[in-house]
Amino acid sequence: MTQGAAGRLAIIAGSGFLPYYVAEAAQQSGETPFIIRLKNEADLDWTKFENVSISVGDVSALGKLLSAQGIDRVVLSGGVSRRPEWREIRPNFKMIAKMPSIIRTLLSGGDDTVLQMVIRLIEAQGARVIGAHEIAPGLLATTGALGNIAPGDDDHRDIAKAAKAALALGALDVGQGSVSVGGRLVALEGVEGTDGMLARVASLRAEGRISSRRKGVLVKLCKPQQDIRADLPTIGPSTVENAAKAGLAGIAVEAGRAFVLDREVMLRVADDAGLFVCGIDVGLAGEMM
Amino acid sequence: MTQGAAGRLAIIAGSGFLPYYVAEAAQQSGETPFIIRLKNEADLDWTKFENVSISVGDVSALGKLLSAQGIDRVVLSGGVSRRPEWREIRPNFKMIAKMPSIIRTLLSGGDDTVLQMVIRLIEAQGARVIGAHEIAPGLLATTGALGNIAPGDDDHRDIAKAAKAALALGALDVGQGSVSVGGRLVALEGVEGTDGMLARVASLRAEGRISSRRKGVLVKLCKPQQDIRADLPTIGPSTVENAAKAGLAGIAVEAGRAFVLDREVMLRVADDAGLFVCGIDVGLAGEMM
Repeated sequence: MTQGAAGRLAIIAGSGFLPYYVAEAAQQSGETPFIIRLKNEADLDWTKFENVSISVGDVSALGKLLSAQGIDRVVLSGGVSRRPEWREIRPNFKMIAKMPSIIRTLLSGGDDTVLQMVIRLIEAQGARVIGAHEIAPGLLATTGALGNIAPGDDDHRDIAKAAKAALALGALDVGQGSVSVGGRLVALEGVEGTDGMLARVASLRAEGRISSRRKGVLVKLCKPQQDIRADLPTIGPSTVENAAKAGLAGIAVEAGRAFVLDREVMLRVADDAGLFVCGIDVGLAGEMM
Repeated sequence: MTQGAAGRLAIIAGSGFLPYYVAEAAQQSGETPFIIRLKNEADLDWTKFENVSISVGDVSALGKLLSAQGIDRVVLSGGVSRRPEWREIRPNFKMIAKMPSIIRTLLSGGDDTVLQMVIRLIEAQGARVIGAHEIAPGLLATTGALGNIAPGDDDHRDIAKAAKAALALGALDVGQGSVSVGGRLVALEGVEGTDGMLARVASLRAEGRISSRRKGVLVKLCKPQQDIRADLPTIGPSTVENAAKAGLAGIAVEAGRAFVLDREVMLRVADDAGLFVCGIDVGLAGEMM
């Protein structure tokens, strides 16, 4: 799908393993990806790829890089946990023209509006932003149980409950995940992220504030209004480990719109811990199908 | 408003200070309240009032108490952080007739459905459940700034944003509170409660995952579908202290549908810390007025 492209592919890499898998998938499809590591976010060893580090707010350096490297396509990949402070942002001329709306968005936008702005700023530098799933379609979750364990009836009820909540909070542009235990919503993901939320569920369980007899489910879904070129929900072995520590029965993500990292390792961890991992279909109206 | 009642008033007391203030208000209006302390929840010294302790699930003992004490009105007040495990519930005959729906509700209902069931069970014993605000109307928040500090323009924007989120999660029957910082929703309250959520905001702030330059606001609202006879949002001095630790600019609650405990102490703490506390009007459609 990326064959015949005239220019080079860049991967702007945030935290976590996703950007690395995307880079490897790009390499396997014949690309020579150029990695733009985000300072304080990209936390892997990137020496295997040509790479450079820039500050999150340094759009000026980004513009120069894109043209110097002949980059025509950019993938945004990985987490960005910290927003740039205003003083860190080094504007270029294109940015200055849009300054008031940029300031407003950075200061007060939800994650989704900030992402939209970042995409527009990159495209104003002359490159096209494409989705990581276009480079690495093999990382997307498929429908149904991914490992050896399938969700049971109680789990399906928890999945439906948590999915409804995940869509509602996605619409508010807060987070992508929620946890339902025995049909009761117990946690909604905010800025703390999925692992932070699972740690909270684990300690609420230890304190006896969540049933010790009902397991429960983590659901992660795309925000309904989300641009799928950035920030698709992602799970991997550590998500399964944290779900196990929280005493959950399993994890459900949106088929075709969530990344599964280290699939083999993750499913071995899940099978060993007795957890299911499954892909679900979510209709446009948020109905489970 | 409680004058001329034929029977005695009981207060089923959960955790926190609210039940104590309700008991004092009842006493001041000429009642002799009988306190039913919930085991593992009621955490104050209740020796000043006639009182007895029962398990959360012990509806049978509750029925006997109500008739032995000639109780015709019951106030539910304070927090219940732990649901009864099934084995702790000692049913009486009235309960057994409704057993399947009770089991279903206790195991899987949201907080609101569980409260509705508790209210129905108590009323099946022959007493009427009334709201704490009917006994202690002086504890309700009023409209506008309660202390010396009023919210500014940025704060009003955060209030509107967090209020919208609080209503949405209330509709999901998850929690009553949310935090918006610089127009960005950062935390939604789940089973951990308001103080747990504020502690999370404080640590996200310390980790640099929330702007250090924008303060933000906590909003607590009634769930839209909530029975106002139980579980009205409550704030007090410790809420203000925790909001200050989380670096917030202030707190907004729903006027007429939220309790303010220890008002004088709380407002002194708020004024000293530079925080506003205000009551807001929320329209039926969730519009700020």
